[in-house]
Amino acid sequence: MIRNEFEPNEIAAQIVNGNRRTLSRAITLVESSNPDHRVQASELLNALPPAGHAIRIGLSGTPGVGKSTFIENFGLQLIAADLRVAVLAVDPSSARSGGSILGDKTRMDLLSRNPNAFIRPSPSQSHLGGVARRTREATALCEAAGFDVVLIETVGVGQSETMVAEMADLFVLLLAPAGGDELQGVKRGIMEMADIILINKADGDLKPTAIRTCADYAGALRLMRSRMQDPKDFPKALMVSAIEGSGLAEAWCEMQTLVAWRKETGVWDQIRESQNIYWFNAEMRQSLLSRLENDPNAGAKSCELQEDVRLGRIAPSVAAEQVVDSFLGPSRKISTQK
Amino acid sequence: MIRNEFEPNEIAAQIVNGNRRTLSRAITLVESSNPDHRVQASELLNALPPAGHAIRIGLSGTPGVGKSTFIENFGLQLIAADLRVAVLAVDPSSARSGGSILGDKTRMDLLSRNPNAFIRPSPSQSHLGGVARRTREATALCEAAGFDVVLIETVGVGQSETMVAEMADLFVLLLAPAGGDELQGVKRGIMEMADIILINKADGDLKPTAIRTCADYAGALRLMRSRMQDPKDFPKALMVSAIEGSGLAEAWCEMQTLVAWRKETGVWDQIRESQNIYWFNAEMRQSLLSRLENDPNAGAKSCELQEDVRLGRIAPSVAAEQVVDSFLGPSRKISTQK
Repeated sequence: MIRNEFEPNEIAAQIVNGNRRTLSRAITLVESSNPDHRVQASELLNALPPAGHAIRIGLSGTPGVGKSTFIENFGLQLIAADLRVAVLAVDPSSARSGGSILGDKTRMDLLSRNPNAFIRPSPSQSHLGGVARRTREATALCEAAGFDVVLIETVGVGQSETMVAEMADLFVLLLAPAGGDELQGVKRGIMEMADIILINKADGDLKPTAIRTCADYAGALRLMRSRMQDPKDFPKALMVSAIEGSGLAEAWCEMQTLVAWRKETGVWDQIRESQNIYWFNAEMRQSLLSRLENDPNAGAKSCELQEDVRLGRIAPSVAAEQVVDSFLGPSRKISTQK
Repeated sequence: MIRNEFEPNEIAAQIVNGNRRTLSRAITLVESSNPDHRVQASELLNALPPAGHAIRIGLSGTPGVGKSTFIENFGLQLIAADLRVAVLAVDPSSARSGGSILGDKTRMDLLSRNPNAFIRPSPSQSHLGGVARRTREATALCEAAGFDVVLIETVGVGQSETMVAEMADLFVLLLAPAGGDELQGVKRGIMEMADIILINKADGDLKPTAIRTCADYAGALRLMRSRMQDPKDFPKALMVSAIEGSGLAEAWCEMQTLVAWRKETGVWDQIRESQNIYWFNAEMRQSLLSRLENDPNAGAKSCELQEDVRLGRIAPSVAAEQVVDSFLGPSRKISTQK
């Protein structure tokens, strides 16, 4: 695709027609940070049809909670119900580890080989913001490609959850059974994002603990202010066993209830619209910073000041202003006269 | 201080001479986001003498762990040893809650009334980065004012820890006694930052649990790669009882051991130097973004595009590029021709 002749409308049409190879290559294009590719990616994104009917589900859970097994079996159940499923990942650790989700893909063995599923490993970028922005665009591509459900997976480390919540229609938190005292272990901020909390591993020896944990979280959720717009009994805590497949149908049923309610009340569109504004602001910040990084004047000034900053001869904030001035040019300096 | 005649050298001299009122007002100045005040703050920071002998201790712990009690009694012990102690806070929640640390100040009753202590509530800014930058400058002011120890407190929510670790010489993590299974509750990233982990509440009924917790963390720390430059037995886990005052002297002794080692090996200076570079980069990003926010051209373009972005008629990334172009002017557009 990244060739001399770039035909955004042609590529968009191929994606809409379900060409998986084109979809894969389009995701590679939006993930690229090359400026020419960014321009092409913009043209492609603008050539896509308006957002389709996909349900974008953000899924968060710490390592070991059984996320891969959940995605594998939940995804297969959705496919059995005649739905097409895409799986994307925002994995802030992948930059270091070389992409743990690649390992996950081999663990999602049946799902990854199913023609109605599309699994995309996490892009390996060092900057979390960069990963998230590109994942959001990959989500739009999957939606245009007609997937009914896009699962956006992330690992429980705070900031990535916020970004995934900002690109998902629903946010699901997957937890392991644990003693009541450990409730505090889940950051309140992440609990507040969740529309549905699933206590996994409700099977075998862990089942009694799962029952207690589920009751604990249900209690905690009742103490938290529910979102104005949602039915009173959301957010909810439910038990599942990803490995046995139990509770998955019920969980999907609850998700559909919430989706139907939000669509009916107009909240669905409101959420997507405010997410568009969120990403507009995020993209502005990121675009400006990447131009600073690539600016030769700023680069030269920064090199010049580096040593004095390092040795504490000039305050970092003072030196920073000088670099920004050299980037914007003297006429753009903030006036200090009043 | 924020008056017609601004004499940075005079103000710096007053701070160095221990004038607490001037110190307070100087911190208010560095916390201000008014552009004129930022210029004055820069001049003041550059007028300060080179960084002094203070030990900057970052202190993190989730709510309920006994942080205020620890600061009160640890601070009083340091003062009893003829040291002067400043306490600052980076509290990302204060923007919403109106500054929980203000409540803490009343709880640090004896310390806050001691003439050798200086307690500064968390600045109430909505942007975590903003809070942290200003706290770093407040730390430099306290150091210039001759405080021997500057405690920089934060709440355990991930990103704020990273920033506090980047402005501290030592990073101390305060934890409550808890069952072994809950070890995972502390984010690995935060454990990795810690030079010393203190298990608080090692008193009364909780003592046996504290002993086990301390052993668990000591074990976990041994499994983690120790920092190349530090003595082999760091990072360490120790027990304290903030309320009874036990273990505080030992904790301070360990901190001094680490400080002495780092100063002797030159690591102390290396850390401070790389922190200067970290903040140089952070300040550049922040300065540039605040200029974008205040730019009338960008503001107009952003308003013009807002509605199309909201309704999904234009991709957020495409609209963002247009705003950045209008900020930088047409000549600064990234060339798309090759």
